[in-house]
Amino acid sequence: MSTTPPHTRPGGRSTRVRAAVHRAVGELVAESPSEDLTMPTIAARAGVHPTTVYRRWVSLADLLAEVATSRFSGDIVVPDTGTLQGDLERWTADVAVDLADPDVLALMRATVGAGPAGGSACSADRQAQLAAILERERSRGGEPPDVEQAADALLGPLYYRAIFAGRPADPDWARGLVEALLR
Amino acid sequence: MSTTPPHTRPGGRSTRVRAAVHRAVGELVAESPSEDLTMPTIAARAGVHPTTVYRRWVSLADLLAEVATSRFSGDIVVPDTGTLQGDLERWTADVAVDLADPDVLALMRATVGAGPAGGSACSADRQAQLAAILERERSRGGEPPDVEQAADALLGPLYYRAIFAGRPADPDWARGLVEALLR
Repeated sequence: MSTTPPHTRPGGRSTRVRAAVHRAVGELVAESPSEDLTMPTIAARAGVHPTTVYRRWVSLADLLAEVATSRFSGDIVVPDTGTLQGDLERWTADVAVDLADPDVLALMRATVGAGPAGGSACSADRQAQLAAILERERSRGGEPPDVEQAADALLGPLYYRAIFAGRPADPDWARGLVEALLR
Repeated sequence: MSTTPPHTRPGGRSTRVRAAVHRAVGELVAESPSEDLTMPTIAARAGVHPTTVYRRWVSLADLLAEVATSRFSGDIVVPDTGTLQGDLERWTADVAVDLADPDVLALMRATVGAGPAGGSACSADRQAQLAAILERERSRGGEPPDVEQAADALLGPLYYRAIFAGRPADPDWARGLVEALLR
């Protein structure tokens, strides 16, 4: 029994620390200026010793990438409406709703700001969902666009509006992105 | 003569402080992890007292937005090739080259990470250049797409690839974005 390493034992201290630290990151990112988001402030908010945080995560960038990956992993269900257009419209609308959540935007901004790997932590799972939608269309006998083309056409404008242009993505506009891609 | 406020006197101490602080931000952003980018480390690198920095810029977010706005303002010349397609292809290629510069990406990431206003500091001037290109086409008697549509179709994929997907934007791909927009 004692052969299970402590940092993977479910329900163990290490699992609780991870949950507390992830929660602390989410709270601090949502409420504080970026200057206050440091390993020590995160440790204090999580109620753990700073060395515990430094021992477990190499850097703030590493920790934020883990929190973002965990947050965006499987948060949106891949739809199955029967058609590629229907699937993409449903999925694009769900991503747009997610990107209208101020807490999601704050986590994305902080993760991007923490280092070069942050961006992909905010997009990898979305690209995987898109790949699954396109793969299903292929299994229906269709010829969908490739995943990079679809990501450029859908995630490009969605993320640009949310992070750079500060404009909300309305549902009609999001549907228009899908139409333009499939045209 | 003494009525000119010190912070706008050209060549004065205040102008030198601003230049030194902007340069320090550029250097630190390019070489350090985000955790080391704070008002005190910027002041130290610029060789000025931290209170000088705090007095002049409300926050790190404010300072980074100013540096980004200044960096991206007029960095790309609006082309005049005689056709809308030519203008957009030239401009898109220039933006793609800029987004392949690691120092530019580091500044964009840090500015986005510093707060909600950071994104628009990295995109406002690009949108203004795009508006100028579209306006010129209108003055030629053409009927160009509106600026938001063009920004979604061009800046969306360009910024998404650079910041989120970590994929380089090759020239053929960038030309394809313009074709898709004008189709």
